[in-house]
Amino acid sequence: MNSRSESELAFLSIEQAARLLRRREISPVDLVEAALARIEQASSKLNVFLTVLADWARGQAKKAESEIRRGRARGPLHGIPVSLKDNFATRGIRTTAGSKILAGWIPDADSDAAKSLAQAGAILLGKTNMHEFAYGITGENPHYGPSRNPWAPDRISGGSSGGSAVAVATGMGFGSFGTDTGGSIRVPSALCSLVGLKPTFGLVSTAGVVPLGASFDHVGPIARSVTDACILLEALDGKYPRGEKRPDYRKLRAGRPRRFRAGVPKQLYFDRVDHEVRELVEGAVKRFESLGARVEEVSLPRLEHGVEQATNLIVAEASAYHESQGYFPARAAEYGDDVRGHLEYGHKVLAVDYLRGLSARREIVEDFEAAFERVDVILAPTSPIPAPPVGESQVRIAGQRETATRAELLRFTRPSNLSGMPALSIPCGFTRAGLPVGLQLMGPRWGEARLLSIALAYEEATEWHKRHPHVT
Amino acid sequence: MNSRSESELAFLSIEQAARLLRRREISPVDLVEAALARIEQASSKLNVFLTVLADWARGQAKKAESEIRRGRARGPLHGIPVSLKDNFATRGIRTTAGSKILAGWIPDADSDAAKSLAQAGAILLGKTNMHEFAYGITGENPHYGPSRNPWAPDRISGGSSGGSAVAVATGMGFGSFGTDTGGSIRVPSALCSLVGLKPTFGLVSTAGVVPLGASFDHVGPIARSVTDACILLEALDGKYPRGEKRPDYRKLRAGRPRRFRAGVPKQLYFDRVDHEVRELVEGAVKRFESLGARVEEVSLPRLEHGVEQATNLIVAEASAYHESQGYFPARAAEYGDDVRGHLEYGHKVLAVDYLRGLSARREIVEDFEAAFERVDVILAPTSPIPAPPVGESQVRIAGQRETATRAELLRFTRPSNLSGMPALSIPCGFTRAGLPVGLQLMGPRWGEARLLSIALAYEEATEWHKRHPHVT
Repeated sequence: MNSRSESELAFLSIEQAARLLRRREISPVDLVEAALARIEQASSKLNVFLTVLADWARGQAKKAESEIRRGRARGPLHGIPVSLKDNFATRGIRTTAGSKILAGWIPDADSDAAKSLAQAGAILLGKTNMHEFAYGITGENPHYGPSRNPWAPDRISGGSSGGSAVAVATGMGFGSFGTDTGGSIRVPSALCSLVGLKPTFGLVSTAGVVPLGASFDHVGPIARSVTDACILLEALDGKYPRGEKRPDYRKLRAGRPRRFRAGVPKQLYFDRVDHEVRELVEGAVKRFESLGARVEEVSLPRLEHGVEQATNLIVAEASAYHESQGYFPARAAEYGDDVRGHLEYGHKVLAVDYLRGLSARREIVEDFEAAFERVDVILAPTSPIPAPPVGESQVRIAGQRETATRAELLRFTRPSNLSGMPALSIPCGFTRAGLPVGLQLMGPRWGEARLLSIALAYEEATEWHKRHPHVT
Repeated sequence: MNSRSESELAFLSIEQAARLLRRREISPVDLVEAALARIEQASSKLNVFLTVLADWARGQAKKAESEIRRGRARGPLHGIPVSLKDNFATRGIRTTAGSKILAGWIPDADSDAAKSLAQAGAILLGKTNMHEFAYGITGENPHYGPSRNPWAPDRISGGSSGGSAVAVATGMGFGSFGTDTGGSIRVPSALCSLVGLKPTFGLVSTAGVVPLGASFDHVGPIARSVTDACILLEALDGKYPRGEKRPDYRKLRAGRPRRFRAGVPKQLYFDRVDHEVRELVEGAVKRFESLGARVEEVSLPRLEHGVEQATNLIVAEASAYHESQGYFPARAAEYGDDVRGHLEYGHKVLAVDYLRGLSARREIVEDFEAAFERVDVILAPTSPIPAPPVGESQVRIAGQRETATRAELLRFTRPSNLSGMPALSIPCGFTRAGLPVGLQLMGPRWGEARLLSIALAYEEATEWHKRHPHVT
């Protein structure tokens, strides 16, 4: 075996772990045991996993160990333990989508993301807790318990990919795939001090994912560093149009532009923001200046009005899906109150309002396109607030009147679901109470490679990503 | 001048007229005067034109005459008088869309189709009557009078491009552009013994057309022969994807496949059809066999159910447009009863039903794609009935129970608006009462060139297109 502590093993970067595996200084078995020990220790307390695949993971670890020994190593994920949000279909493995309705569903085929993980040689530890049917941003699940924040367990992890974020933050695996329809990868990443990427719409297959709003659903990685996120993204095997740059984790550092233009949408993303969040994000913007960014203000004039109109699109698509499956309204009683309410609301949306939403969406895309003519990246907070307490439905931001926590948590992430352009959340500090804050980097369509390079430059200049929550 | 009678001049083919113009045996002035004489004689009786541009057309004819004399001839439409449906914006020329609401609208820019006509050197005679806002298939207009069928003036011309069809049928110009959202080019072409083409969705720009349902609106030609239709289509300057064959009227004959496969969807398109229509269409299918077609039955299993579901798409898009312009419900009283009723209905469609319609539409596309794996062309009636009397809202087909005339007239054309694939109506005979019957040819996406070649083979083997209505 090896001399490293379980905690050291659990928090290696994927690159480090892969190097040690190749040199046979450690075995996949060590990594899986370290992760399983942490799951054993804290998964129930924090409601992280809905299904743990301990035996399966141990078996896969042995297999990977033997493959690597025989010189048949695959890429950097070979032998690396990971998790999947429970809305990714996994063949022969229960897939609940965080719902009671699918509590007994055993899919007979893998989602594309599960296939990609298997092909890369990653080892699936289990399926993570999530907001019911991914239809919420808090991660509070009435059937399986709230996904709790490892930095403050009385607070939410954010959702809907809350379990995935908590698993990665606490060393229960090296990465996870989540889904993001309105912010469900980026918000829990921000609230748990992680790197979360919503890629360009259409890049990564969503086949085999229980849909929320099919025109807005994105599959993407949650990781502890920019490089780890890039390695996970590469495993997903997205198809880039000819001429667009495919991310390569080995080239991220070299791909960093020496000088670049960063846009700050002051009006929309810096008003009505928690004072500490704002300070930390403004500090990050300054840090970018010292890293070669020319910072300028950008305006997205039709965004605020447009997002309001386009919200109809997502809720209508969700209701249409649940009706088409015979779940809603037929089995309305089996939903949690919040999701049932959203489905009822979505059912009543008029087609004319849906169509108005489509027009608004086109205007949002045009606004972002115009901004990306001028700047390489847009910088903003990921969430206007740090993680609120579990169960707190209203929030007061910067001394203003109370508003709905849910709407606030989504406010800065949803625009990128409507634009279809990539957006990344990275850690940028902690409040005085020790709660993580996320910085959001938005880029133009197919711009993942450059976005990750710019994020890596910041990460290398800071220490935030090296802190891990203390879980007892 | 020339020795040809006004009637001879008015019914030349575009190719013949162009040849005579080039040889200076006739002048554009002769053609315009012949057309204006016929407009003078019968436009009011049949409610053909909403705006006649006599002075403008005479001026343009002089100009074209002088250009041709100076050897500056353009293509085959140079100096040819034509008309435009009144939903194409024309700069400085009233554009009503057949409505009271736009009765005073003078656009300050041309639609793309109007620009194309001008570039080709065609001479605009005027703007033709239509179903109000193109929202109906009968051509009965409460504000400007019903567009009457020149073969039987107590009967409808069909719509919504009724005036365009009647103008072309009666020699008031050589061709016209119409729009087709559910059959509005093909149905009046069938009912008036003309060639009408709905091209592939996306081929021809609809910029500057007052929309009905933007996902289903198509611009296309109405003409007296297949070659004329092809010449008019070419003028529209559609963009084909790389590798797809662009129609060329000089190559239509050569492009005709020696042997080809023709599909007949018996179940859907030959049930509940007027006996005489059915006989004539079946006769046409036999004629195709003698021309080298291998005829087989094709099935489109999800079409019937799908069309019903997808109808929601068009009505919702129409209501959304009229609301976005502040016409409806604000000015509801200014609409005719039928259009107001459709707009009210469309306003109530739920987004979930719209989304179900989108799924149904995808299935319709798949069904047609599967059929076009097996056959080159699908043959069917354009309309299950010949032109019904003006004002007759119910119809009894083949002795079955009464159904809505409007729904029946649309039944065979709407599927191609949903599939987005090209469809053509050509004359295939007359009932014993002397009413024209249309044969519909449907082809795969971007298949206009082959569709027109196949249609030309039939046209050359028949005489139907040589008959013209006697207008007194």
